[in-house]
Amino acid sequence: MNYKKYEKSPVITLPDRQWPNREIEKAPIWCSVDLRDGNQALIEPMNVEEKMEMFQLLIDLGFKEIEIGFPAASQIEYDFLRELVRENMIPDDVTVQVLTQCREHLIRRTFEAIEGIKNVVVHIYNSTSVIQRKVVFHMEKEEIKQIAIDGTKLVRELAADFDGNITLEYSPESFMGTELEFSLDICTAVQDAWDHFNDNPIIFNLPLTVEMNTPNVYADQIEWMDRHFKERENIIISIHPHNDRGTGVASTELALLAGADRVEGTLFGNGERTGNVDILTVAYNMFSQGVDPELNIDNVKKIAEVYERCCKMEIPMRHPYAGQLVFTAFSGSHQDAINKGKQYLEEHDCKIWDVPYLPIDPADIGREYEPVVRINSQSGKGGVAFIMDMNFGYKLPKSMHREFADVIQKISEKKGGEVSPQEIKKAFDKEYLDQNTPFTFGRVKVEDVGEHDAHAKLEFSYKGENMVSEAVGNGPLNAVKEAIAKKVDVNVRVLDYTEHALSAGSEAKAAAYIHLKDLNSGKDTFGVGLSSNITRASVRALFSALNRLSEK
Amino acid sequence: MNYKKYEKSPVITLPDRQWPNREIEKAPIWCSVDLRDGNQALIEPMNVEEKMEMFQLLIDLGFKEIEIGFPAASQIEYDFLRELVRENMIPDDVTVQVLTQCREHLIRRTFEAIEGIKNVVVHIYNSTSVIQRKVVFHMEKEEIKQIAIDGTKLVRELAADFDGNITLEYSPESFMGTELEFSLDICTAVQDAWDHFNDNPIIFNLPLTVEMNTPNVYADQIEWMDRHFKERENIIISIHPHNDRGTGVASTELALLAGADRVEGTLFGNGERTGNVDILTVAYNMFSQGVDPELNIDNVKKIAEVYERCCKMEIPMRHPYAGQLVFTAFSGSHQDAINKGKQYLEEHDCKIWDVPYLPIDPADIGREYEPVVRINSQSGKGGVAFIMDMNFGYKLPKSMHREFADVIQKISEKKGGEVSPQEIKKAFDKEYLDQNTPFTFGRVKVEDVGEHDAHAKLEFSYKGENMVSEAVGNGPLNAVKEAIAKKVDVNVRVLDYTEHALSAGSEAKAAAYIHLKDLNSGKDTFGVGLSSNITRASVRALFSALNRLSEK
Repeated sequence: MNYKKYEKSPVITLPDRQWPNREIEKAPIWCSVDLRDGNQALIEPMNVEEKMEMFQLLIDLGFKEIEIGFPAASQIEYDFLRELVRENMIPDDVTVQVLTQCREHLIRRTFEAIEGIKNVVVHIYNSTSVIQRKVVFHMEKEEIKQIAIDGTKLVRELAADFDGNITLEYSPESFMGTELEFSLDICTAVQDAWDHFNDNPIIFNLPLTVEMNTPNVYADQIEWMDRHFKERENIIISIHPHNDRGTGVASTELALLAGADRVEGTLFGNGERTGNVDILTVAYNMFSQGVDPELNIDNVKKIAEVYERCCKMEIPMRHPYAGQLVFTAFSGSHQDAINKGKQYLEEHDCKIWDVPYLPIDPADIGREYEPVVRINSQSGKGGVAFIMDMNFGYKLPKSMHREFADVIQKISEKKGGEVSPQEIKKAFDKEYLDQNTPFTFGRVKVEDVGEHDAHAKLEFSYKGENMVSEAVGNGPLNAVKEAIAKKVDVNVRVLDYTEHALSAGSEAKAAAYIHLKDLNSGKDTFGVGLSSNITRASVRALFSALNRLSEK
Repeated sequence: MNYKKYEKSPVITLPDRQWPNREIEKAPIWCSVDLRDGNQALIEPMNVEEKMEMFQLLIDLGFKEIEIGFPAASQIEYDFLRELVRENMIPDDVTVQVLTQCREHLIRRTFEAIEGIKNVVVHIYNSTSVIQRKVVFHMEKEEIKQIAIDGTKLVRELAADFDGNITLEYSPESFMGTELEFSLDICTAVQDAWDHFNDNPIIFNLPLTVEMNTPNVYADQIEWMDRHFKERENIIISIHPHNDRGTGVASTELALLAGADRVEGTLFGNGERTGNVDILTVAYNMFSQGVDPELNIDNVKKIAEVYERCCKMEIPMRHPYAGQLVFTAFSGSHQDAINKGKQYLEEHDCKIWDVPYLPIDPADIGREYEPVVRINSQSGKGGVAFIMDMNFGYKLPKSMHREFADVIQKISEKKGGEVSPQEIKKAFDKEYLDQNTPFTFGRVKVEDVGEHDAHAKLEFSYKGENMVSEAVGNGPLNAVKEAIAKKVDVNVRVLDYTEHALSAGSEAKAAAYIHLKDLNSGKDTFGVGLSSNITRASVRALFSALNRLSEK
């Protein structure tokens, strides 16, 4: 591969940078550009109804600044904006943002489009980068700067006759590829031309139009601007990161550390090419660190549903927070650790979430009903036991996990895919509950004898032959075992026994688990029995284990 | 949203960090974990044939270290590894990596699995993080450390009897959530237990098992380890980043700046939950900055095809470098800038790629045949002209771009979706080439008169009435115009005229474009004509424009 066709993008020298010493403490001002940058990059842009629905969603999510479009460039966007005004759809606390190039007829047309809106950000831009000056505009820096100054003056002039509240936003487009001194120079010229028109701070949007370098370089650029702006208190530093190198979220986070006040982005990172930064991921990242994201994003499934329908885009399976698989653990050790972590939280009544492999509680963002633990051939014993517990209420004793997980792993390897909870339950029934030969349980009657012993009268069949037997033993289970041994040549020891109620109420059944060892062969196995009567459940478990041993 | 349920993850203090001052100069050692971490997180893990194909792909891509799996934990992975050995599939210069927990029976079983392999990394791990010690293992630091020491000693013992070349890799799993001093302590204990067994450096893999913080924090952790390791020259620092916060690529890049030598990751970021770091994106990012990625990844479509088929996963539309939409520009100004950038490169025979909005030349990674410029209702005039040129060879004069783009924008707005090149061409034909009324062209004969003038004899019809007319004019076009004016009341001026050959060879046709103004109404429009004869092409263009003017 001819890597020599490419050159390193320039970096700046900022050895005393402060951003790596900081942490994100507060949500930025969020500005959604879903209806503009997001929409323009769709194979099938939203129609007016879809735009309305998206606009309403953004309002519901708590966005206070929403870029509507480029009304001077598209009749559809113009009409949509007018419809919002006509239908009185824009809440008083929401500011509408409109984008336009710094060209006179476009700026004038933009002001026609915003007539009657209470709060508007008029966002003007021109490209300032070295490459665009060279190949697109064939202009010197002073000419490029003059475009921005003229645009600002025209906005100022038209704003004077405008009834609503205007905020100026200026973007040196392709900021990341512009010399910092020139970006500062052109922003300062805009600042001077705006000349404190009103009390609103100017928004200087410093876009990462195309990611060109590792995200720390963008952070350095933002920190440099943050330090050099004049009247910094009258400026909002806005960022508008894209995702060409797959580091849009990181570029955003590091730029916030570096002094950015405001983020322009989209839901799920929609937007030109690789997309804009995904505001939801940045917000959920903050949430996971105890920072209020200042958005109402507690139902990511609902957000995803509207997004996918309106934008005709699909959210990838591994997309942070929203993807189908991201709260899923297929690996056995991960499943085990998640279960233990959740158990610990419950048992210790912890107020702070801290569970291995789950950076946040899926329930906090509306994903509680999805299976966190899923089983394929790579899964371990903990996951299978978890499924049996969560889905069916069976609390398999720990020593039994391996035996049953092996059963499921074989099924999974044979099948080649994921094993569903239903398939796991079916295998459990077949392996344990439906074990009726050669020993077939009939009836049992147990009576206490003295303080410790029990007498069992047992009806059962062995290889089809009906038998009745009775014996006394140390406890009911032992008595039954002895009764069997009187008729059939078995030599077994109960290694362990546990039981639990399977459900609440009068219909409750008990599940009993027996770990049984064949003293002749040395083999051991588990058996499971189910009954509304605890004694019968345990006897059934014994029969289940005996039958499994005779299979082995 | 109850953000108070979460706490900030701890950060370290490293004010003299050096990594933000560095740039990535060299590719790391790449280790693919597609067959292990990637595979274990699939709804439907790969079968043996698919694993074979994936293994071969990884070899072809130039990976020299490939983690095969966890053979002691899964019979399928054990069998697959043995099949690789039996079939002699492992090239001599490729090292196979096998993962195992630090447990005696698993380590012993792992050595059975690698019998006969020439170069092996035996990768042992145990969880070391604060949370896992607390909720999963209930162990003190010394006990956790002892697990690692015992595992290392057993590997050393078994390695002594092993014929091949063994490298030890140790991972303090969940490194990012482990106290740095303890990570160093446990790694040093492993180093001591390994006791220079052979000349191979030990690989210390410091996984970002779950992303917990902004990526600069991980970089600080890696730099701290890099500075504190003893015998650093005998150590390879490996990283294994996941993507929970959507910053896996950034975490990797910043960790490389911080001193990491080796990256474990997967193709397209497959892996548990949000996935592992996408090695391809990191590698293409390097490539875009003139750094040799040291992988053979010049055909991303082929890689994507094998990946999607074997893993049954889909590559998202906006996935960097590989996604369907990432080299696409829908916005008019972007399309215009791309076209100008490419033109500049060609005209100036530039050796270094620098095109706005395209960080790399799509052709360099096997994506040359895809449409970079796509048209929807948000697209501008440049894009439509580009499509007409690229797809059909029509080089519309610049002044004509707006007129035709407006036609296409109306179609797009009406339709609501993308307009294909075929639809654009159909509209072009209808608007320009098929304009036959009210003026219908019949025949023309032009002869030079003197040095400058021409005489035209023209047969045409107007509103169905056939006419023959002749006139002399300043050039053929003017003569034809005058001939028409003798019969029909038209008062037009040719504002501009251009033509070009539409294709090469004897069958070549010429396309002619006329910009015509109606001096009575003040309106102007373009007309286009096509013919193998240049004169006829220009006359047809005149008729096309006349007909369009009479429509207006």
